[in-house]
Amino acid sequence: MSTIPDFTLPHGLRVPPLGRRLRLGQIGGGRSSVVGAWHRDGARLSNHWELVAGLLSRDPARARLAAADQIIPDDRAYTDFRAMAELEAARADGMEAVCICTPNNSHYELAAHFLQAGFDVILDKPMTSKLADAEALARLAQTSHGLLALTYPYAHHAMIRQAQGLVAQGAVGTIRQVVVEYLQEWGTPATVDDAPSAAWRRDPERVGRASATGDIATHAYHLLKTVTGLGITAVRADFHRCGGARAMEDTAFIKLQMDNGAPGQIWVTQAAPGNHCGLRLRIFGERGGLEWDQEFPEQLKLRLLDRPEQIFWRGHGGGMTAAAERLVHLPRGHGEALSDAWANLYSEIGVAIAARRSGVSLASGLVQYADDAAGLDGVRFVEACADSAEANSAWTELVR
Amino acid sequence: MSTIPDFTLPHGLRVPPLGRRLRLGQIGGGRSSVVGAWHRDGARLSNHWELVAGLLSRDPARARLAAADQIIPDDRAYTDFRAMAELEAARADGMEAVCICTPNNSHYELAAHFLQAGFDVILDKPMTSKLADAEALARLAQTSHGLLALTYPYAHHAMIRQAQGLVAQGAVGTIRQVVVEYLQEWGTPATVDDAPSAAWRRDPERVGRASATGDIATHAYHLLKTVTGLGITAVRADFHRCGGARAMEDTAFIKLQMDNGAPGQIWVTQAAPGNHCGLRLRIFGERGGLEWDQEFPEQLKLRLLDRPEQIFWRGHGGGMTAAAERLVHLPRGHGEALSDAWANLYSEIGVAIAARRSGVSLASGLVQYADDAAGLDGVRFVEACADSAEANSAWTELVR
Amino acid sequence: MSTIPDFTLPHGLRVPPLGRRLRLGQIGGGRSSVVGAWHRDGARLSNHWELVAGLLSRDPARARLAAADQIIPDDRAYTDFRAMAELEAARADGMEAVCICTPNNSHYELAAHFLQAGFDVILDKPMTSKLADAEALARLAQTSHGLLALTYPYAHHAMIRQAQGLVAQGAVGTIRQVVVEYLQEWGTPATVDDAPSAAWRRDPERVGRASATGDIATHAYHLLKTVTGLGITAVRADFHRCGGARAMEDTAFIKLQMDNGAPGQIWVTQAAPGNHCGLRLRIFGERGGLEWDQEFPEQLKLRLLDRPEQIFWRGHGGGMTAAAERLVHLPRGHGEALSDAWANLYSEIGVAIAARRSGVSLASGLVQYADDAAGLDGVRFVEACADSAEANSAWTELVR
Amino acid sequence: MSTIPDFTLPHGLRVPPLGRRLRLGQIGGGRSSVVGAWHRDGARLSNHWELVAGLLSRDPARARLAAADQIIPDDRAYTDFRAMAELEAARADGMEAVCICTPNNSHYELAAHFLQAGFDVILDKPMTSKLADAEALARLAQTSHGLLALTYPYAHHAMIRQAQGLVAQGAVGTIRQVVVEYLQEWGTPATVDDAPSAAWRRDPERVGRASATGDIATHAYHLLKTVTGLGITAVRADFHRCGGARAMEDTAFIKLQMDNGAPGQIWVTQAAPGNHCGLRLRIFGERGGLEWDQEFPEQLKLRLLDRPEQIFWRGHGGGMTAAAERLVHLPRGHGEALSDAWANLYSEIGVAIAARRSGVSLASGLVQYADDAAGLDGVRFVEACADSAEANSAWTELVR
Repeated sequence: MSTIPDFTLPHGLRVPPLGRRLRLGQIGGGRSSVVGAWHRDGARLSNHWELVAGLLSRDPARARLAAADQIIPDDRAYTDFRAMAELEAARADGMEAVCICTPNNSHYELAAHFLQAGFDVILDKPMTSKLADAEALARLAQTSHGLLALTYPYAHHAMIRQAQGLVAQGAVGTIRQVVVEYLQEWGTPATVDDAPSAAWRRDPERVGRASATGDIATHAYHLLKTVTGLGITAVRADFHRCGGARAMEDTAFIKLQMDNGAPGQIWVTQAAPGNHCGLRLRIFGERGGLEWDQEFPEQLKLRLLDRPEQIFWRGHGGGMTAAAERLVHLPRGHGEALSDAWANLYSEIGVAIAARRSGVSLASGLVQYADDAAGLDGVRFVEACADSAEANSAWTELVR
Repeated sequence: MSTIPDFTLPHGLRVPPLGRRLRLGQIGGGRSSVVGAWHRDGARLSNHWELVAGLLSRDPARARLAAADQIIPDDRAYTDFRAMAELEAARADGMEAVCICTPNNSHYELAAHFLQAGFDVILDKPMTSKLADAEALARLAQTSHGLLALTYPYAHHAMIRQAQGLVAQGAVGTIRQVVVEYLQEWGTPATVDDAPSAAWRRDPERVGRASATGDIATHAYHLLKTVTGLGITAVRADFHRCGGARAMEDTAFIKLQMDNGAPGQIWVTQAAPGNHCGLRLRIFGERGGLEWDQEFPEQLKLRLLDRPEQIFWRGHGGGMTAAAERLVHLPRGHGEALSDAWANLYSEIGVAIAARRSGVSLASGLVQYADDAAGLDGVRFVEACADSAEANSAWTELVR
Repeated sequence: MSTIPDFTLPHGLRVPPLGRRLRLGQIGGGRSSVVGAWHRDGARLSNHWELVAGLLSRDPARARLAAADQIIPDDRAYTDFRAMAELEAARADGMEAVCICTPNNSHYELAAHFLQAGFDVILDKPMTSKLADAEALARLAQTSHGLLALTYPYAHHAMIRQAQGLVAQGAVGTIRQVVVEYLQEWGTPATVDDAPSAAWRRDPERVGRASATGDIATHAYHLLKTVTGLGITAVRADFHRCGGARAMEDTAFIKLQMDNGAPGQIWVTQAAPGNHCGLRLRIFGERGGLEWDQEFPEQLKLRLLDRPEQIFWRGHGGGMTAAAERLVHLPRGHGEALSDAWANLYSEIGVAIAARRSGVSLASGLVQYADDAAGLDGVRFVEACADSAEANSAWTELVR
Repeated sequence: MSTIPDFTLPHGLRVPPLGRRLRLGQIGGGRSSVVGAWHRDGARLSNHWELVAGLLSRDPARARLAAADQIIPDDRAYTDFRAMAELEAARADGMEAVCICTPNNSHYELAAHFLQAGFDVILDKPMTSKLADAEALARLAQTSHGLLALTYPYAHHAMIRQAQGLVAQGAVGTIRQVVVEYLQEWGTPATVDDAPSAAWRRDPERVGRASATGDIATHAYHLLKTVTGLGITAVRADFHRCGGARAMEDTAFIKLQMDNGAPGQIWVTQAAPGNHCGLRLRIFGERGGLEWDQEFPEQLKLRLLDRPEQIFWRGHGGGMTAAAERLVHLPRGHGEALSDAWANLYSEIGVAIAARRSGVSLASGLVQYADDAAGLDGVRFVEACADSAEANSAWTELVR
């Protein structure tokens, strides 16, 4: 285990890699932002990070107010990203990484600027609103000093690591079909799109060619690939507006062709009353099936042919793999949930950054996060879905 | 309520319509049959029927043995359906109706013969293995003395009647999308098709142009229409063999176009380890969602926007509609399950037959069963799916 | 397996032992009875019985009406039990067994009369309203030609047989504590006691010294002993009236001393809004725990230390014991519920009667039903609870 | 709303009351501690606190190592509490409050010392190991400058606030019985008591007169009182050692007399395989019942007579009370769990401290935490249980 230094242990339990917290700045995430709080909670709970600077609004008064909420002093409450990069780089205690939680169309410019300025960049998904931008950003990330990470938090639940391990061990045998759904209700009344917090999600200028697909199908796609280890070669997408007359799709049925020949499906909708964060994964193999539901993240169900159903519960022992136990923070039954997944995400990224700086090589697969390649892959998926939907739901190859 | 005679009350509680049980014969349903037992259990539990004759095997010894299981004397243990029709018609205490539980390709000949001989016919779904046969049988049923009923048992759970009532009352508002899935595991190993009880299900000669689609998607289709009251105008079907190399599809993803413009989907598979009779219905409207799971048939979940989730439990009161209460036999919490649904089915058919003979007209919608039109509709659905699958999953109109 | 004749197979699948159905009469069970219907449904669904005579009311018109509901002719719709015994004994096709579903205080006289008249007697629990009557009836049963069986239907769910088998195999190790609860809501408003169907349940003349304890704690007690194989040596009972001012207890907390030294508890109430037939069993041993809930009777949960939770689902294979599989009638996922448990009960009793008449000895434990000893044990339990409650909840030994 | 300043809003969303984080020290909570991490996670996630000093071990090397885990410098990694109090008081940036997570018998000395030294004290439950100590500490708290708070985290789940509100609104009517259980499995093998992390829990010197009762029944007791608003007047306790031969009880059945005359029960055990943090609350009133399970903390079930079951899900709207919405941090479906409850707890205490210092009076009931009176009440409950168990389970009055 000589390649696994102590600092690879999960959030909050052991001394972080550098003997101090990494200094984080945030762009986006003002008072009306939901996503911004998730990033901050994960960073805090991980104990690997401290938030030292913010560009939380372009309006100076709002920027200062939102920064004050986070105990960020006025002089580090920025309203211009170039100034932020320049001034923080100049400080001895300046921020080292930036997390970007703005609408999709700003991702490229912001991420490219901070990468080029030598910062590590933590970027909300999807990577960009345009494929060309994603390709350019991925190329840039390859040559940057800093690391580029995308935030797909659901993949950081301990039981997703457990599912990944069980599949890799062959628990279910060869995978024969996979179905992922992600259902929400917030978009049921079309009028909700008039609210500022929702408006940008249906604006092609800001989100790109797809709405719900980029917003939530990307999570489903990433989760499916993370757990199964399979690639997707082609998609066929039906876009619908089930919440009423609105600018872009709120619902998509996306049929998948997987690279082992098995079929798959992703179904997402934001117009399903009674569903809130209904991300559910079902994998069926030749010997068994696996099922996980984000709203009950502590359990993973394994059903082998001619055996009692087995439920793995997050915790130490009880059939957990070592890799999944790394992400276990609270004892079994003492619930972890979404902020714990975000904390795992920020721990993993923190460890990766520290290892990179320290010249330590981590055992393959030990520390996981979505890198630039995964980010580009996500945008290619959205583009292929949009192509398919525009082509009357024709099967469309996924460039890889 | 003058048009609702006392005998419309549910199974076992009140005197059946004719003051006696109806006399039933059965074709198919020998010792290796699963479906045959369901019919008998439903008939018995309903208290509207007694089983008096059987053609339970074409082998005389087996036919007598299986009949003896059911306390049917040797002289009414037939091996030839023509003889059965003739001899039973000649008896004063002869059977009045026949239930047919044989492979699909025999349905037309058998049903037509018994209808023409003046019997009521209760026919397992799908109606026939060929569309032309279904059309001919439906025409015949229109002019027959006897009644033709198809058996879709899941639609006879009390909570499906409740769901139907809630939709009709507008509880969820205009329906915006519907998804039904029916997942089983028995077909996971392709070798299972070698067993006689499964072999016919993958034999186009015996089942027609589709396997899992005819076997279980028909249930999903019937359930969807029963609850929503919507029609389906077109389908797009992907057929797969997820259980391995075999003669016909074990899995189908069927996209639906509903006649109010909303999309729908039926997903069925017999290669989903850990699922047994996983028939699940989800309806999303502009105001709320409904969810029902056949493996937990006592509950119906209604989720209205900005309201606590509501769970209706089968029983009297507690928000049950009068129509659903008609199907309530045991008190709430004292579980009903599949045999109770079959008993409701046999009660409904028994009441319909008795009403027909008595010249009593029943209030519209009070007594429900799938008639010849519903049977023909089911075959048209299977045919359209097969057409679509053969045409590279092209959208295919559903003739109505 | 030479001592296990073919007729020991479960309900409806094979020829009953005598090649015909046993002829049953019923006392109690008129139109307002709930329990009466359960007996009839179980008998019918079992396919081992036909109902040929009834004393369903003491009022002649009502007796005929209720009998007609069951297709019992007027001349076998009795209003006097002595006449029923005499006339049925005199018929060549007379009833062979009688099921008694009347209030507790009539049990002794009725059961004794029919036993002495040579009939088999199937008696609803509790056996009698008075201990002396129970003792006398048990003595009588020992010397009778007929068999005396008590009806504890919940013990006849297939998954209870599975739990019994797992405990016997040592799956959970030595049992360390057991908790059973049975919660209902119907008695929440005290005014419900004014209704005739409930009034007798709070009338010491008719039920004996305890109300909810005799009504539902007896089920819990019987279930606990059936599954664990342990005896109870002493009880300490607190009686309460949680539904308001009424004549007798609607709630009891009963602490148990088990004969292996482990503690136990039975908690019953009829004043728990939201509970209907909430009979739940939890067993904890040195290696694992078992849990079963009557409202979800298809599942049995086994949780072994440091292992994933296991859920056994009713069906063939999948870890089911052979003894539990005997009670499996429908395939896994095709739900069985309360009427199936009653059918198992009536099958078991039917097989026991037939074996007795045929001189066949059944393998020990193969066919299970509650006999006179179990009936007497149940009354002793009620008496001990009543003694304890009257003695300020003193620990009270249970005479065995 | 003039008495409710902005800083009463929950964790992380708005500027904390003093425009900065409160400075926290921790005693106990070294590398082998489970509880210590919970405190730190809650403090961090709340965004109201920063951890600046620690006495995490009495061994200097271990103390420094554990402090380094938390980015506490060596010079604030104490090994003597008096030195900690003195040196921190002397610093301009010294700690303002201390959280104490040590075995029970040290609570009094530590808490008294820090209170007298002018610090706020956050103390793990139970308050002390001896009643006299608790009384003395409560008296001291009344006259101290600092605030004394006890940590009962489960009471800080948003849905417990919701349950409290529903009861107060009369949703279930007058409460008629309450049952709380708290089941764990870790103590099943008696040998576990040999481990240092468990040994102190069965050592009367360190925990006082009761083990599982002080450890987990206190949570159940506090939760019951928090939600119902009822007092407990007397207890009757049975102590058992269900995990095998060990020094103190691992299991207790505690019957309660509530001050409105209704009965209650608390059942706790640490020898229930398959249970981890199985804290479950059931309240039954004259009109309805409420149920909550700590392992599924997002849901609260309300079952009113003759109404569909209602499930409240944590989030904004959907029937949530305003008081419960204050504790909502993530959107519905985006799970909160135990660390969120701890964050609520540390937010509430932080707000209370800040309000106290600022001379702001908070609206009654708005900000809730367990104060010295609640702490003393908890110890009195443990003492009464121990008295009862020693007196052969006699009913024992609870001094108030």
